[in-house]
Amino acid sequence: MTLLVALSGWDAQTWVDRFAALLPDRNVVALGEPFDRREVHYAVTWKHPPGSLAGLPNLAAIFSLGAGVDHLMGDDRLPDVPIVRVVDEDLTGRMSEYVVMHALMHLRQQPRYMAQQRRGVWEDDRSQPAAHEVRVGVMGLGVLGIDAARKLRMMGFDVAGWSRSPKDIDDFPTFAGEAGLDAFLGRTDILVVLLPLTDATQGILDYELLSKLPRDGRLGGPVVINAGRGGLQNEPDILRALDDGKLKAASLDVFVEEPLPPDSPLWKREEILITPHNAALSAPDAIAAQIADQIRKVESGGTLRNLVDRARGY
Amino acid sequence: MTLLVALSGWDAQTWVDRFAALLPDRNVVALGEPFDRREVHYAVTWKHPPGSLAGLPNLAAIFSLGAGVDHLMGDDRLPDVPIVRVVDEDLTGRMSEYVVMHALMHLRQQPRYMAQQRRGVWEDDRSQPAAHEVRVGVMGLGVLGIDAARKLRMMGFDVAGWSRSPKDIDDFPTFAGEAGLDAFLGRTDILVVLLPLTDATQGILDYELLSKLPRDGRLGGPVVINAGRGGLQNEPDILRALDDGKLKAASLDVFVEEPLPPDSPLWKREEILITPHNAALSAPDAIAAQIADQIRKVESGGTLRNLVDRARGY
Repeated sequence: MTLLVALSGWDAQTWVDRFAALLPDRNVVALGEPFDRREVHYAVTWKHPPGSLAGLPNLAAIFSLGAGVDHLMGDDRLPDVPIVRVVDEDLTGRMSEYVVMHALMHLRQQPRYMAQQRRGVWEDDRSQPAAHEVRVGVMGLGVLGIDAARKLRMMGFDVAGWSRSPKDIDDFPTFAGEAGLDAFLGRTDILVVLLPLTDATQGILDYELLSKLPRDGRLGGPVVINAGRGGLQNEPDILRALDDGKLKAASLDVFVEEPLPPDSPLWKREEILITPHNAALSAPDAIAAQIADQIRKVESGGTLRNLVDRARGY
Repeated sequence: MTLLVALSGWDAQTWVDRFAALLPDRNVVALGEPFDRREVHYAVTWKHPPGSLAGLPNLAAIFSLGAGVDHLMGDDRLPDVPIVRVVDEDLTGRMSEYVVMHALMHLRQQPRYMAQQRRGVWEDDRSQPAAHEVRVGVMGLGVLGIDAARKLRMMGFDVAGWSRSPKDIDDFPTFAGEAGLDAFLGRTDILVVLLPLTDATQGILDYELLSKLPRDGRLGGPVVINAGRGGLQNEPDILRALDDGKLKAASLDVFVEEPLPPDSPLWKREEILITPHNAALSAPDAIAAQIADQIRKVESGGTLRNLVDRARGY
């Protein structure tokens, strides 16, 4: 019984070694090595070459090494077997660290004070809005969005959420679907984007959407935080919205092209805080352990957890 | 019955107007205006001129306009009447915003990424420790310290607290007194200082104390966050500890001399994040309402809340 490690761009051998240590009774191979295709029961993938998982007659499940599975969905020869995402408590906590920190930095005008420090002078106005005066809207209410929303709420922000389909969440108000989007955006000073990347969400952060955020909130203009996927955002539209005052600031951890090209204008904008797609790096050992655990459980009669809905794409 | 507004450095008339609106049946006067000293039953103060509250035979209580009362204690002619501090939920929340934001910024190396953005280049290593791998120690377990500790814990940090006298707190471990100080410091990667300023705490953040913080933690060296009072810190010692690697970084909202003098070396240090003593600005209307409320309550037979222990000095 073989576990196939199908990666591109990551260090495949490191993952082979990790799984071999955790599943000593299996054959663990990387794409490109010789192996018997009939023996492959499981594949773990991150941006595998399209088509490379086809022709595996006994494949029972595909495990994504990340929370997002958009890297899989572009493969039109992807076998029709269950797809499992990573749901990692550590990854969830890291994402919420990023989101809460950036929301607080915009609330407390921290980049402005750091610029004043570099100039060696305090400007006069030291006043700050309080978190409860600022409305945060979280787009995407999966595990990551709900955790971030709850922690933003604990820090005092006035939080609501939006998701494609209605969610039953007690501790903050939620909006759903196209019908609820404008009302959600209309009460959002800080927009936190933790949506999955699908055909329906590709480029959703465009000028039209940003224009619906209110400009009379306590921050002096709306702020966007995208820690989901770069493909969610229209970067020229974000720059245009900053230029004409529809948007005040942004925090972007993800980009249409990664790593962010050296000539991207995003580097130079003081209103934008960029980071190199490390809002929530997975801890490899924790991910490998979770996947190995699922394989063992399903083989002893259990069911797979954290399954992806292929029709929705996440 | 007169309420005396005894301030220096603040806008006394604004406070007189606030209290006059809230207590329309009282005479509200500022120091310097004519008033009958026998009629003064209450004084609200912020850094009043020493001695200016003496010779008020019917004074029943002194209200500090801030959470700290060190500004009162230097007055050796301070009348022996109850002293009341402000305990303001809004102020507590703002302080925790500051503390959590700075702890997260040090955890996530945010100043480093902002410097990389200015240079237009990502350095190679994108890895980050997770909050649960980092030990935060909160010195001072009053209302502010406890709230900050709880919110740090909710964000995932490994939190403990220290106070002069033992505290019975369920949700995180605590240390107390001189006897517990070294053990507390020995498990602290990020030291958050929210102590009152008293004779016992004056200059407590000195080289000797900083040297007791471990240098082998996940942040690559200890970090200090002082949002209490500038008098708690020995600034030359902080610089020395940064210079010789005993300390990795600091966030300072308060300073021995405020506003921070233009020639202070603290401005120039990239490892130090400074702010102009606005970690937790009081919302004046909320403070005035709380004091007016206490005056009304005590006059209808209630007791004063948030009393200061004069012997301890806080």
